[in-house]
Amino acid sequence: MGRVVIIGAGPGPADLITLRGARELAQAGVVLFDSLTDPALRELAPDAEWIHVGKRGFADSTGQQTINALMLKCATEVAVVVRLKGGDPSVFGRLEEELEALAAAGVDCEVVPGVTAAIAAAASTQRPLTRRGTGRSVAFTTAMTRTGALHATRTADTEVFYMAGRQLAALSRRLIEAGWTTNTPVSVVSRAGWPDQLQSDHNVATLPRAGMLHAGRPTIVTVGAGAQALSSVKASRTADASETRVETLKP
Amino acid sequence: MGRVVIIGAGPGPADLITLRGARELAQAGVVLFDSLTDPALRELAPDAEWIHVGKRGFADSTGQQTINALMLKCATEVAVVVRLKGGDPSVFGRLEEELEALAAAGVDCEVVPGVTAAIAAAASTQRPLTRRGTGRSVAFTTAMTRTGALHATRTADTEVFYMAGRQLAALSRRLIEAGWTTNTPVSVVSRAGWPDQLQSDHNVATLPRAGMLHAGRPTIVTVGAGAQALSSVKASRTADASETRVETLKP
Repeated sequence: MGRVVIIGAGPGPADLITLRGARELAQAGVVLFDSLTDPALRELAPDAEWIHVGKRGFADSTGQQTINALMLKCATEVAVVVRLKGGDPSVFGRLEEELEALAAAGVDCEVVPGVTAAIAAAASTQRPLTRRGTGRSVAFTTAMTRTGALHATRTADTEVFYMAGRQLAALSRRLIEAGWTTNTPVSVVSRAGWPDQLQSDHNVATLPRAGMLHAGRPTIVTVGAGAQALSSVKASRTADASETRVETLKP
Repeated sequence: MGRVVIIGAGPGPADLITLRGARELAQAGVVLFDSLTDPALRELAPDAEWIHVGKRGFADSTGQQTINALMLKCATEVAVVVRLKGGDPSVFGRLEEELEALAAAGVDCEVVPGVTAAIAAAASTQRPLTRRGTGRSVAFTTAMTRTGALHATRTADTEVFYMAGRQLAALSRRLIEAGWTTNTPVSVVSRAGWPDQLQSDHNVATLPRAGMLHAGRPTIVTVGAGAQALSSVKASRTADASETRVETLKP
């Protein structure tokens, strides 16, 4: 019986996987990968069989049951099965369902953590999620519930919404209902960490305007303390905006 | 003038740095590193000058001003200065102070994200931070304020406290005051991701008992949905507890 390694590939570019993730990937006989993982990662396991299982966020095109069954089947055929997920498996990665299935079948399993999208967006836009004094907590939330209802909260100093890109107008309304003032800064980043990343600045009231710019791209919405550009960093980055591909929409 | 690359080294073992972080590290002329970064990372930049700047969480032994000045000075002397931080720089890494200092001096800077301790702890204990249905949000909070006062909240379904290891009894009281029921599960992990990682299970009321086991070690406290062991995973892991070095204290 083979073992299964569930690896967080990071948010995008292949070089944001960890060294451990890369090493395990190189040993894989089979790789089951999601839509959001970079095709360039294939170079790390050129001889493995790569099987696309098509998950993208909560849009579940293959079905979790099918993925679980495939993991178990592959574990009977090769020594190392890699389950490669975008971002980090523990954050909105439905990790528990895969772990439960593997454990129930007695298959040995390891989880290799990854860089989650909110953290990648903070790094590439140079906007720390925590700030001394004003940003002592950061929350990651999915705006989408299982039933498709939209939900927003005001809990931490910085609140990051995953998978909210298609419903920015509704998110804006819900944020106001949750108690955020309309002029609270909001930073929207799509394809975080990729060369074609886009970033735009808004506030809670003007957030709906971000819809067109980021349409069809995996989008992270950061609200509150961590959304604010650092004053001097903003100035120095504006100078090379074309190079860094930062788009700024007037709030 | 050289450039500065601020790199998240990840939570511990050298192989949890990203490929990009490792590549940038290999180009460094000088590396300014914190207490919590693994000495084994030196093998990735054996010819660089390694300077220990002594920060560990909020215990600021060198002083941020000194670190800022050192970064700027080194940037006039070598082409690539690496500022190597434990975990991820955007999460409780005081990143904004270093970015502001670099931007004010006109020094080119890049941030490479890393695996933050909460995410590493979730991976190595196989306890996802988000759970379908019960865990739709996760918050990272520091229990310590600048004035040394202890603070606890009940905001997200899973709440992770950084730098709380020395004050678990006070944290327990504050959690109850914040509205968590006494039997809410709490998972305490110290040296997350290292070979000598320790994990123990508690609830909000029995959390103070974790103090002795984790004394003197960097500690992550996870409360709520994400603290719960997966039922079948728990059973299978108990069998090889000695190998995985998981310590379980009865709640």
